[in-house]
Amino acid sequence: MSESNGKAILVICDGLGDRPTFEGRTPLQAADTPNLDAISEMGINGLVDVIAPGIVPGSDTAHLALFGYDPYEFYPGRGVFEALGADMELNRGDVAFRANFATVNDNMRVIDRRAGRKGSEVLAEALNGLEIKDIKVSLKNTTEHRCAIVMKGEKLSRYVSDVDTHVGGGVVADCKPLKEGAAEKKTASIVNEYVRQSYEILNKHPVNEERRRNGELPANIILLRGAGSYDKVPSMSERFGFSSACVAGASLYKGVAKYLGMDVIPVEGATGKADTNLENKAEAALEALKHYEFVFVHIKATDSMGHDGDFEGKREMILRIDNEFVPRLKGAGAYIVITADHSTPVSIKRHSSDPTPIVITGTGVRRDAVNKFDEISAASGALGRLKGLDLIPILSDFMGYYQMYGT
Amino acid sequence: MSESNGKAILVICDGLGDRPTFEGRTPLQAADTPNLDAISEMGINGLVDVIAPGIVPGSDTAHLALFGYDPYEFYPGRGVFEALGADMELNRGDVAFRANFATVNDNMRVIDRRAGRKGSEVLAEALNGLEIKDIKVSLKNTTEHRCAIVMKGEKLSRYVSDVDTHVGGGVVADCKPLKEGAAEKKTASIVNEYVRQSYEILNKHPVNEERRRNGELPANIILLRGAGSYDKVPSMSERFGFSSACVAGASLYKGVAKYLGMDVIPVEGATGKADTNLENKAEAALEALKHYEFVFVHIKATDSMGHDGDFEGKREMILRIDNEFVPRLKGAGAYIVITADHSTPVSIKRHSSDPTPIVITGTGVRRDAVNKFDEISAASGALGRLKGLDLIPILSDFMGYYQMYGT
Repeated sequence: MSESNGKAILVICDGLGDRPTFEGRTPLQAADTPNLDAISEMGINGLVDVIAPGIVPGSDTAHLALFGYDPYEFYPGRGVFEALGADMELNRGDVAFRANFATVNDNMRVIDRRAGRKGSEVLAEALNGLEIKDIKVSLKNTTEHRCAIVMKGEKLSRYVSDVDTHVGGGVVADCKPLKEGAAEKKTASIVNEYVRQSYEILNKHPVNEERRRNGELPANIILLRGAGSYDKVPSMSERFGFSSACVAGASLYKGVAKYLGMDVIPVEGATGKADTNLENKAEAALEALKHYEFVFVHIKATDSMGHDGDFEGKREMILRIDNEFVPRLKGAGAYIVITADHSTPVSIKRHSSDPTPIVITGTGVRRDAVNKFDEISAASGALGRLKGLDLIPILSDFMGYYQMYGT
Repeated sequence: MSESNGKAILVICDGLGDRPTFEGRTPLQAADTPNLDAISEMGINGLVDVIAPGIVPGSDTAHLALFGYDPYEFYPGRGVFEALGADMELNRGDVAFRANFATVNDNMRVIDRRAGRKGSEVLAEALNGLEIKDIKVSLKNTTEHRCAIVMKGEKLSRYVSDVDTHVGGGVVADCKPLKEGAAEKKTASIVNEYVRQSYEILNKHPVNEERRRNGELPANIILLRGAGSYDKVPSMSERFGFSSACVAGASLYKGVAKYLGMDVIPVEGATGKADTNLENKAEAALEALKHYEFVFVHIKATDSMGHDGDFEGKREMILRIDNEFVPRLKGAGAYIVITADHSTPVSIKRHSSDPTPIVITGTGVRRDAVNKFDEISAASGALGRLKGLDLIPILSDFMGYYQMYGT
């Protein structure tokens, strides 16, 4: 037997890890998952500190780490991923934001942080392409009240504070420079002027007049957060030697994938929500494997259920993954990795640093005694406790795209 | 009981780790090894990422790491170890290479990368001591077609490419500078001139005329690779406080040992091959323990069998180690560590990053539930998953040569 390079599917179930909650069990432990368990039985298992022990990962930094990019070196700020995920053009030095349509009263007090879930496209059109001083500001509505914003021009900085205070009932915050510097000062003033103009344009916009007539709150302001600064980074192909593709519903993950040079595969019915079409995602992944060496599949709803504190919902989403998605991977003829970007325990409704279970299976992978895919079983696996950054080097060696040091 | 300093034997079975291959088992799993297993049962077990997870170690860098020397800081390039292993004198700034006698045709196409396995000593004599510009070039035949080369003179650099392309059928490569710089340019031109002169001298040499008459290929060129640049590093004794000795057959490992200030113990019948005399090596290690605190024993053939893809050969070499070597360590009265520098899976015939099993036994060492010495059993041991650089500090503390930080 001589070696030929292998392919791999990396499945990231967002926020999958959890804490013992119902009768002392995690949602994974409480779910009957024969297909996931079969993969654990065939493969090598362990736990992953995606960033580092005790550090609570964001979804964005966690994905960077799992793709082999140290987030402390490569993280550009969330806005960049949102803009890339929305197919907006970014060039070096551009600054990007996440943004929400929101409702404010005449005193700039926030009545609803998430306004205009319908009809936002028209409002977005009215705000797109504004010019403030020498800066051109593009805006694109992504889903419901959510938008991505890109600012182009000289001397912009990501080091400015959020306008969106994330707290209902507060007053719209001033954007402030987070560092001493002309670029930070300039960017903050552009953001504040943009927010002011958004109110002027939106508050009197016919769509909002209509909404008021219907007794609805007007979507009369844009609140920005998560500034990011775009720079080109070496692609996964350049760094690791294999081509890669992304199958995801939610735009953040598409954005991370694009940032790292993956091709994003469009999938019908991939919504990034609990109703996502997992069969289509599996088929898309298998099809992508014909053309790419490495395929990343993202499944979002496990995280959303964690944030909602919905134990039963999370357990059911896990059952769906086990029933509808995992069995289709069987004939893939590729390395299969299943893990999570972080834990989102239903008991605390937020991300936590509890390490996530991981299983790797495929040709030549050592097989340990673990035969169940959950947080506790995985802890006794032969992979031990890894860091997120270790995954791609380990997988690359299995695939044959290894880095050797010394002779 | 109060503490007195202890001694230790570190046994490195080269390339010992493997992947499940025959009936899902590794060579270690497939071998019946009661003596190794007894050590695992008495000791503490674990896995070692010799360099880092997913990074495939070379034998040279791996040994540096296992001796407590970060290869990213201390690695001088392979040629240095080869020259030291061949007992050649090295001073600061000297550049050393590995080299092979080879056969080329009139167009400098390589017909055989490994020529002149017999009679190389005479040919080596003809090439030793050449002077090119202000550089003196020494050459020593080590085993069969293999040589070590040392260049002495002003402004030499290790950052030059290999002349040996490692691929049969190709044309002899030009040596090229790997960095912008006068020393790199100069060294490359010396190497190219040396290769040219080696062909001139060897092609018409009486030994090769004789070979041609006998229908053998002439050993008519020297191909260089693995440039290294010598610098003195702090010895193990200076860094860790204990004296150390090396018992090895193959010259690379003697070279690494010398580089770190170990004394190399000559052992009759230690060949670095499958026919090596393991009883003599064990006796030499026990004898060395009388005079040194730390004794490193290297056993090479497990790696060679991996490179050959020879499962049964690797299994049999493991059985020999278990039968002929390990039982003799019983009365050593020292800490015993058994591990590998890397995995060399027979299925892929190259080094891999799969972590290697390790066992440590001796006074005061915690005893875990592991009772079999193999890659999977070790994974559940109480040592967990270590890095190569962790070994000597851990062992030093058992031996009583510990470093304390704080009070």
